[in-house]
Amino acid sequence: MAYELYYWDGIPGRGEFVRLALEYAKADYIDVARQKGGTERMMAMIKGESAAFVPFAPPFLKDGELIVSHVANILLYLGEKLALAPSDVQGRLFAHGLQLTITDFLTEIHDCHHPVGTSLYYEDQKEEAKRRSEVFLADRAPKFLGYFEKILAHGSQSNAVGDRLSYVDLSLFHLVEGLRYAFPQAMEGDGARYQRLVALHDRVSELPQIAAYLRSDRRLAFNQSGIFRHYPELDALNGP
Amino acid sequence: MAYELYYWDGIPGRGEFVRLALEYAKADYIDVARQKGGTERMMAMIKGESAAFVPFAPPFLKDGELIVSHVANILLYLGEKLALAPSDVQGRLFAHGLQLTITDFLTEIHDCHHPVGTSLYYEDQKEEAKRRSEVFLADRAPKFLGYFEKILAHGSQSNAVGDRLSYVDLSLFHLVEGLRYAFPQAMEGDGARYQRLVALHDRVSELPQIAAYLRSDRRLAFNQSGIFRHYPELDALNGP
Repeated sequence: MAYELYYWDGIPGRGEFVRLALEYAKADYIDVARQKGGTERMMAMIKGESAAFVPFAPPFLKDGELIVSHVANILLYLGEKLALAPSDVQGRLFAHGLQLTITDFLTEIHDCHHPVGTSLYYEDQKEEAKRRSEVFLADRAPKFLGYFEKILAHGSQSNAVGDRLSYVDLSLFHLVEGLRYAFPQAMEGDGARYQRLVALHDRVSELPQIAAYLRSDRRLAFNQSGIFRHYPELDALNGP
Repeated sequence: MAYELYYWDGIPGRGEFVRLALEYAKADYIDVARQKGGTERMMAMIKGESAAFVPFAPPFLKDGELIVSHVANILLYLGEKLALAPSDVQGRLFAHGLQLTITDFLTEIHDCHHPVGTSLYYEDQKEEAKRRSEVFLADRAPKFLGYFEKILAHGSQSNAVGDRLSYVDLSLFHLVEGLRYAFPQAMEGDGARYQRLVALHDRVSELPQIAAYLRSDRRLAFNQSGIFRHYPELDALNGP
């Protein structure tokens, strides 16, 4: 039976980290909200007053009757089923910890354009967004990117964890893609500062399954509604 | 061998969610950074340039040679070892998803007093903090608290998940404690709006192991350096 991925249509967003794992593993899946009536089905599941195991928000995955919510939880689950994670306990726990670090980083990236609240428009928090982005690019982005670079220095075969490609590597690829879209000036020349991370990004982009996916219409373009948004006024010449 | 918990000394912070699980299960553990020389040991592990499995930040747990980072990951691990989580797959995945929802909520709570950046003082982002807290109390807190209340309406025996107390219930207890500390005006009368959640809070506080822990000097008081901070100017009469 095909996996069912439930995530907002129209943006790569958090769902993209799950899509990349499913695509790389050539898993059979349905991107539910991109089907006719899919968004309504998704909303009914979230609102489900009488159902158990109701997720707080998309993305969530259905595998038969099983429901799994949150990107890192979904990838932990798929990592085992699709052989996209180390099989030893320490490797599996470390991969999940790395994915949770990526999760934290994504929240900080998102909040660059929404530091006051997600219920307000960007235009209503533009001044706060400028301050936050400046601090983010100066302090936080280098801390996270430097950490992943350090981790890659210890991975075997240039992977973040274990001796084969994992969902963490796929997520790091998309992280670099997103940061380059959101902060093109700040990320300029990132290959010199984050050599291993960018090498991993390039290698993932050339994997046959990923390259085919990136060319397909299943890959959604970044835009002004997701985690990674490009507002020139938030970008900086002195990047991480 | 005793578990080793690595977390900043002096604040309950994120480490508290792990402490509550260890205390409830009467597990043998060392709160490393509260020992002489412990903070230095913790910092050396995070900086560890040559070590594998280096965590991004505290808290992390050592169980023999095994290292686990991030609260939700630690609780997933301990949940199985200490019988603090459902043993079926769906229950375990749902408990982890709930803990990750709590994690997201905690970040939003923390960012009420640090909407611009953690590297700046509160005093340098006080105006932004006021705006963020107002939106948080009006929109976000009710959304999260309402969700947990809904989940508790479906749990058996008033637990969030499964038929016995889990680490999620212990975390929800601390969440209520923290919100009441940070936003006493806004949380006033929370028992009427979030009946099941507050009933769970009260029940957890009376569990013999938890009651003994709360009276001990191992339980650190909230203060102005953690996730939950009380700044009267961020509190509101119209709460979630």
